[in-house]
Amino acid sequence: MTLLVLGSVAFDDVRTPAGSREKVLGGSATYFAWASATLVKTHLVAAVGRDFPVRFEQALEARGIGLEGLHRDPVQETFYWKGYYGEDLNLAHTSAVHINVLGSWRPRIPDHLRAAPYVFLANDQPSNQRHALDQLQKPRLVLCDTRDLWIEKDPHGLLEVIRRTDGIILNDGEARLLTREKNLIRAGKSLHSLGSRIVIIKKGEHGAFLSMDGRGFALPAYPVEQVVDPTGAGDSFAGGLMAFLALVQSSSFSNLKQAMLCGTIAASFCVEDFSLDRMRDLTRVEFDARLEEFRGFLSI
Amino acid sequence: MTLLVLGSVAFDDVRTPAGSREKVLGGSATYFAWASATLVKTHLVAAVGRDFPVRFEQALEARGIGLEGLHRDPVQETFYWKGYYGEDLNLAHTSAVHINVLGSWRPRIPDHLRAAPYVFLANDQPSNQRHALDQLQKPRLVLCDTRDLWIEKDPHGLLEVIRRTDGIILNDGEARLLTREKNLIRAGKSLHSLGSRIVIIKKGEHGAFLSMDGRGFALPAYPVEQVVDPTGAGDSFAGGLMAFLALVQSSSFSNLKQAMLCGTIAASFCVEDFSLDRMRDLTRVEFDARLEEFRGFLSI
Repeated sequence: MTLLVLGSVAFDDVRTPAGSREKVLGGSATYFAWASATLVKTHLVAAVGRDFPVRFEQALEARGIGLEGLHRDPVQETFYWKGYYGEDLNLAHTSAVHINVLGSWRPRIPDHLRAAPYVFLANDQPSNQRHALDQLQKPRLVLCDTRDLWIEKDPHGLLEVIRRTDGIILNDGEARLLTREKNLIRAGKSLHSLGSRIVIIKKGEHGAFLSMDGRGFALPAYPVEQVVDPTGAGDSFAGGLMAFLALVQSSSFSNLKQAMLCGTIAASFCVEDFSLDRMRDLTRVEFDARLEEFRGFLSI
Repeated sequence: MTLLVLGSVAFDDVRTPAGSREKVLGGSATYFAWASATLVKTHLVAAVGRDFPVRFEQALEARGIGLEGLHRDPVQETFYWKGYYGEDLNLAHTSAVHINVLGSWRPRIPDHLRAAPYVFLANDQPSNQRHALDQLQKPRLVLCDTRDLWIEKDPHGLLEVIRRTDGIILNDGEARLLTREKNLIRAGKSLHSLGSRIVIIKKGEHGAFLSMDGRGFALPAYPVEQVVDPTGAGDSFAGGLMAFLALVQSSSFSNLKQAMLCGTIAASFCVEDFSLDRMRDLTRVEFDARLEEFRGFLSI
């Protein structure tokens, strides 16, 4: 079952207590698709600049990610993020952002992908998310993400995206910022009242929880002994989650719980190395083995 | 099955974003016993001063808590703690501590309680914990707690307590401080190497995890919408946990998992009001109902 993700493809410069990397492949859509492609065929809708190397495109293609929706801008440069993590690996500090190609890009979903049943609107400006929604043809499930920047800069645009999608996946800080509720349970309820039927709040190393149709579910993170680089963990979580839903073609409460386990496992691999390095050769077999181990870890 | 707890009984002055209370009943042993008494007969080994009001003693007795091990000092005053919580309810700020009676007290376990099979050494100076251990007669299970003060002030005494007990329950910050490991999974392994067979690390609103005999288990906290006062949550957690183990007379991995659920539920009630107010009239029926709800919340 086809899965579509709208978001960013980026160059990242990142420094963590474990080391640093320059100009590695990053971006919300990249991490999402890299994770989801472990389970289902995933198509990117994103933009890169003239400086985007062929080898990165080849890597995405080798991973089985559909690039028909990837716009290659002949003039602008690729979106660039520079950041670092201190001892609190839950907190990314941004040193520099060059919007570059994303400043003028408007997403265009290729015609043959407009009927994609499962769609994720990764972190992007709300006007682009709305623009993508306008092009979709009766998707079965659309979940969205956002970040502090858009909550502050375009709350009305974001609220429209929330109303027009089935649910939202965001982190604890963003949930608090958006709803002005310090308590996450109340923040979840507030998100329902804004129009999200499915609310998933991620808490980094502390796991995530789901609220939906008056029911709740929470789970801790997979116990990773050495977090090398947390960049992309949230997008990988969303990728694993949406991939499972697309695979089973259902977004029931019960399947969303299983999907959250898959998201957790995807994120756990993501953080074990820089950029996409740990997930580069990740197989379904490895993924499933860790998923089974995690089930044991949670069983009561 | 008899459960014994060594620890403090205190007067607390506490301020939280929800309000404040003065000279309320507190202390590690109090919170522990108040929670555990919901499930099993619990005996206190603690000391209070000449200023300890009869109504507090009556309240403890009315809760069914055995006070044969409660030393009433005719000269000194009761241990006093004053503190507050800001927006981060996981972090207690101490404004004042008057050690008072605890400065000179050495615990004495009444003869008929020395064969107690289940024992918890709540936060207290390691020399007192060792002194209590010396008096015990073949307990089936002894778990201990500690805090930053003792980790810094008497690490050698604490390490002896760790070697002589079956396991340790402590919070994430203490685990990091004691082991010098930032990653909690590695901190858990380090605690095993120090001599704790059972390692339980509490993470406040983010749940807790267990490591034992090469197996692990993690669970999120019960979703409390309004945390009024987090004081005593950790001790209540330990109380609910030990009470379950004493009730089923087992400390197998499987029962420790169930015990952690009971601990989580005890803590969830504790934080819903100041001091012991929410737990004052807590019944087994209420406790079990929330436990069942929590099981649903965790089931995968």
